[in-house]
Amino acid sequence: MENNVKNIKNATVSEFLENILLGDITYLSKAITLIESSKEKDFLKASKLLEACLPYANNSVRIGITGVPGVGKSTFIESFGTHLIKLKKRIAVLTIDPSSSITKGSILGDKTRMEKLTKEKNAFIRPSPTGNQLGGVAKKTKEAIVLCEAAGYDVIIIETVGVGQSETLVSSMVDFFLLLKLAGAGDELQGIKRGIMELTDAIIINKADNKNIKEAELARSEFESALHLYPLKDNSWRPKVITCSALKNIGIDQAWQIISDFVKMTKANGSFDENRTAQNKNWLLKTIDQQLKDNFYADLEVQTNLNRILQNVENNKISPFEAANELIEIYFKKKEEN
Amino acid sequence: MENNVKNIKNATVSEFLENILLGDITYLSKAITLIESSKEKDFLKASKLLEACLPYANNSVRIGITGVPGVGKSTFIESFGTHLIKLKKRIAVLTIDPSSSITKGSILGDKTRMEKLTKEKNAFIRPSPTGNQLGGVAKKTKEAIVLCEAAGYDVIIIETVGVGQSETLVSSMVDFFLLLKLAGAGDELQGIKRGIMELTDAIIINKADNKNIKEAELARSEFESALHLYPLKDNSWRPKVITCSALKNIGIDQAWQIISDFVKMTKANGSFDENRTAQNKNWLLKTIDQQLKDNFYADLEVQTNLNRILQNVENNKISPFEAANELIEIYFKKKEEN
Repeated sequence: MENNVKNIKNATVSEFLENILLGDITYLSKAITLIESSKEKDFLKASKLLEACLPYANNSVRIGITGVPGVGKSTFIESFGTHLIKLKKRIAVLTIDPSSSITKGSILGDKTRMEKLTKEKNAFIRPSPTGNQLGGVAKKTKEAIVLCEAAGYDVIIIETVGVGQSETLVSSMVDFFLLLKLAGAGDELQGIKRGIMELTDAIIINKADNKNIKEAELARSEFESALHLYPLKDNSWRPKVITCSALKNIGIDQAWQIISDFVKMTKANGSFDENRTAQNKNWLLKTIDQQLKDNFYADLEVQTNLNRILQNVENNKISPFEAANELIEIYFKKKEEN
Repeated sequence: MENNVKNIKNATVSEFLENILLGDITYLSKAITLIESSKEKDFLKASKLLEACLPYANNSVRIGITGVPGVGKSTFIESFGTHLIKLKKRIAVLTIDPSSSITKGSILGDKTRMEKLTKEKNAFIRPSPTGNQLGGVAKKTKEAIVLCEAAGYDVIIIETVGVGQSETLVSSMVDFFLLLKLAGAGDELQGIKRGIMELTDAIIINKADNKNIKEAELARSEFESALHLYPLKDNSWRPKVITCSALKNIGIDQAWQIISDFVKMTKANGSFDENRTAQNKNWLLKTIDQQLKDNFYADLEVQTNLNRILQNVENNKISPFEAANELIEIYFKKKEEN
């Protein structure tokens, strides 16, 4: 390839599109950098590029993977990805790592975690975008999915660590949500984060090898009965629980089999596409909500009055509804005066 | 009392306040009717009355009670209320019944369900307000709580049937959330609505009498282990599960004991007040959000373009973020032109 980095950066939207559709990784990387950019001038170009890519997107299976640090996410993705590549799939791994924006250090680290996969020409690995707002980070990742799909990746993995709302955000942009766990010392479920079980399509107990096998099997059966306590999702999928050893490559094929079964079933009953449409509508509504709120709370008059009114609510001098009305009036009155 | 209904309706805010503080049920009823009114002219008066009542509010225990039709909510509240009245408490029962606005018929019926309690002078029973929006119905109920507290009620029960988001709304205005259940034929937890376990502070298995006792006890132990699977709430309360027979008045004292323990514990660790403050802040923020959205979606230009843009999102012609930007621009541009 004779393009150098500088040239690509200045490529036109149609040059970007053409090369992304050819699966050119350098162009893909630069395109993701473009949508991640916070520079005003990159904005319009990024949005045109996304629009151009959209007709070629949507043909992958999007898998969310979460689990606490130490559970073996990288090792799992490495084994899982290698398995998929053997099956002639092309896979992209994106991450949403809230820690990278908060602490400037990243829990999920970078590509070097997945040494084998990094060398595969059919794998594309991209670390988490940075940003001050988790919502902004998520938006960039959702847009990166579109670019990766246009570049022909069949399986997109979105990896996250369970910080803040990152799991909810990831689950709102994937078809299948996978929770990695370790077998511990009994009562596995105590440590489960609130709300996470509802998001989960499968739980995989990792590191089920050697002396851990029995414990992992126990954990598996405990999670399985726990999942039975939850109502079925609208798509009629009953979440699965299996054990695996990502290190020893045991159970990896089974994990992919489960996801394939899920895709087959949900495509047959229509819920696969319904879910994607619903996700997009949701992102639309949420983005509007967020922008309305951003605009409201950025208003100087609102800012001047907010603390006083909040304190009146706290001291029960004013009902929250009355308080809301007062602030809303301040906001819209000013708008009308302009 | 020589006031007739017509006179009370025209009473001034300070006349309302004075008589509500004296515990006059007729004034209280009329005041609730006033806050429920959708007439423009009642608005200002209702809001002044609420503001006047606020300093006298906040001294009750607010209990949310939910359960499917047939679980025995009325019978439970009747027995529970009667027990409290024996303990020298004054209790108010309010309801949030989404069905009353949707079907014009109410699942929760009216006062006649609680015949004994209706006759008690220390009990005040008020059926669900009607309204097209569940949020509006909830707002009216939250405001009615303030009036009831000003009228000196020690325990406010908010009853609901689990339709739509009604349980979440009720839990956002009470101190303690109670789920009534029946023992069924094994695997009790399958029928539990998504998210409801997280809201629950206690589960009471009703109709635990005669030949049902064994089954109820089984259900109790099943729910108890299920609740252990959930992480503790921030207030450190571990949800309790008991059996009772509202009809035979068995276990009713225990139910109140649990709630008293809860109040004692959360008042000691500060979470009782923290929760109320957090609830009020939440209502403030949610009300602002709702009004911003109402204003946005009521905008004619937005309405004209919304369907077209939504369809473009559905057909993957435009990303949800781009779509949001387009609508937001239409909205604010118009505002600026005015």
